Amino acid sequence: MGAASVPLSTVMKKWVGVSKNANNDPKTQGEERKLNLGMASYTFREFNLDHTLAMTKRLGLEKIALKSFHLPLEATDEEIKAVAEKVKKADIDLYGCGVVYMLNEDDVRRAFHYAETAGMKVIIGAPNPNLLQMVNKLVIKTGINLAIHNHGPDDEHYPTPESAYIRIKDLDPRVGLCIDIGHTQRSGVDPSESAKKYSDRLLDVHIKDVTAAAKEGQTVEIGHGVIDIPRFVKTVLELNYQGSVSFEFEKDPDDPLPGVAESVGYVRGVLAAI
Amino acid sequence: MGAASVPLSTVMKKWVGVSKNANNDPKTQGEERKLNLGMASYTFREFNLDHTLAMTKRLGLEKIALKSFHLPLEATDEEIKAVAEKVKKADIDLYGCGVVYMLNEDDVRRAFHYAETAGMKVIIGAPNPNLLQMVNKLVIKTGINLAIHNHGPDDEHYPTPESAYIRIKDLDPRVGLCIDIGHTQRSGVDPSESAKKYSDRLLDVHIKDVTAAAKEGQTVEIGHGVIDIPRFVKTVLELNYQGSVSFEFEKDPDDPLPGVAESVGYVRGVLAAI
Repeated sequence: MGAASVPLSTVMKKWVGVSKNANNDPKTQGEERKLNLGMASYTFREFNLDHTLAMTKRLGLEKIALKSFHLPLEATDEEIKAVAEKVKKADIDLYGCGVVYMLNEDDVRRAFHYAETAGMKVIIGAPNPNLLQMVNKLVIKTGINLAIHNHGPDDEHYPTPESAYIRIKDLDPRVGLCIDIGHTQRSGVDPSESAKKYSDRLLDVHIKDVTAAAKEGQTVEIGHGVIDIPRFVKTVLELNYQGSVSFEFEKDPDDPLPGVAESVGYVRGVLAAI
Repeated sequence: MGAASVPLSTVMKKWVGVSKNANNDPKTQGEERKLNLGMASYTFREFNLDHTLAMTKRLGLEKIALKSFHLPLEATDEEIKAVAEKVKKADIDLYGCGVVYMLNEDDVRRAFHYAETAGMKVIIGAPNPNLLQMVNKLVIKTGINLAIHNHGPDDEHYPTPESAYIRIKDLDPRVGLCIDIGHTQRSGVDPSESAKKYSDRLLDVHIKDVTAAAKEGQTVEIGHGVIDIPRFVKTVLELNYQGSVSFEFEKDPDDPLPGVAESVGYVRGVLAAI
């Protein structure tokens, strides 16, 4: 597990402050009832788990999907359970993991064992297409969802939601998509249209903004880019989407909190205004 | 001028990054055309001017009103001009100062000289009521607006927008109000109703959120408190209010950036969604 690259003593202090103050609760305005906002821990890849949980709490988010930086895929069962317990003690729902790349059968077995041991509900993953039948069997066996993450123009297998959908549409319905709206937009595909079109398999969302609807597009604070966030939020609400909408903020890895905070605020503002 | 209490080298780095990246511009979604969002530098009272400007830029805000921490009221003309030049070089509009308390005639004279020397358009102030005739004369003489800031239940003279309005309504129209929506709500008064009722004298706004519509209410990230922000934003837009709406975030003085970033994001989200 990575060590924090920046001292964050104040973050820890704030965490305690938030926990003690019942009024400092974004749920009082009802947003979380409408959309399950969460954190994709890749955002905090330069920080250790304690800081990651503290920053997630400070943002008022109650769900997290851990990237391997915060819980290595090769961890022992005891290590996995200890991390799951730590997340639970922070009053955060460890709903998933990812993005988990799976290149062979061992990777698939390990991923499902890891998720099952941690009590996760979904693996946000990118299994090689030849492994999808095996993935399907393990989804049926474990009851854990597998959401394929699209990674944009450079992704050989899953550049877009459509490219994932056509490979999984005949599998168990718990094999579905994590639509990454940034990489979708970078592929020149409209994220709202994708959410509508593949809503029967929409299992997770990575929410963010990007500078351009092109391969060169880079993550920026939500509202600074080109994605029509109000339209996307309205779309998933209209679809009555019940999964998580998790913030994955790739920018400023050594100092991501202000940018992801602005992004979280933006989505809450949209939810409050529409 | 106060020294930064927290090292912020990364902030400076980001500032440069933002300036270089034309795409990383919140104006591309048009919010700033609808509402003039700015910064009340009291938010950054534990940081020096350089860091304050860097954080303001990082948030994509282009207007600032300086508190005395960042430009002391007793500064020499040369010092004042040097600070004004530094703000200008950062591509930020030094539109005002405050809150400036004025207890005697010397304070009034000094405040207008300070604002005039810096090229500011508005003094956000709290002059003792017996000084208002003198203030009125200096507003007429200099063309600088004076916006009286309401400070809530503990404020002897100006607890609410109404209490300020009744004292200035017969003065020059450039003597008006800076409605602090947090202190207004803490006084049990609806900020949107106040904005409507006193719109003819609305010259500045401090935007924030508070935990309770009571004296005990404390500032929190916008969206975490009790103020109906979408309604307030709609109200000032309907009023075609042309002044600034500046973020004053009193919480977490040693680490305010994440909280004020979330607040800025929230207001941008509201503006994009309504």
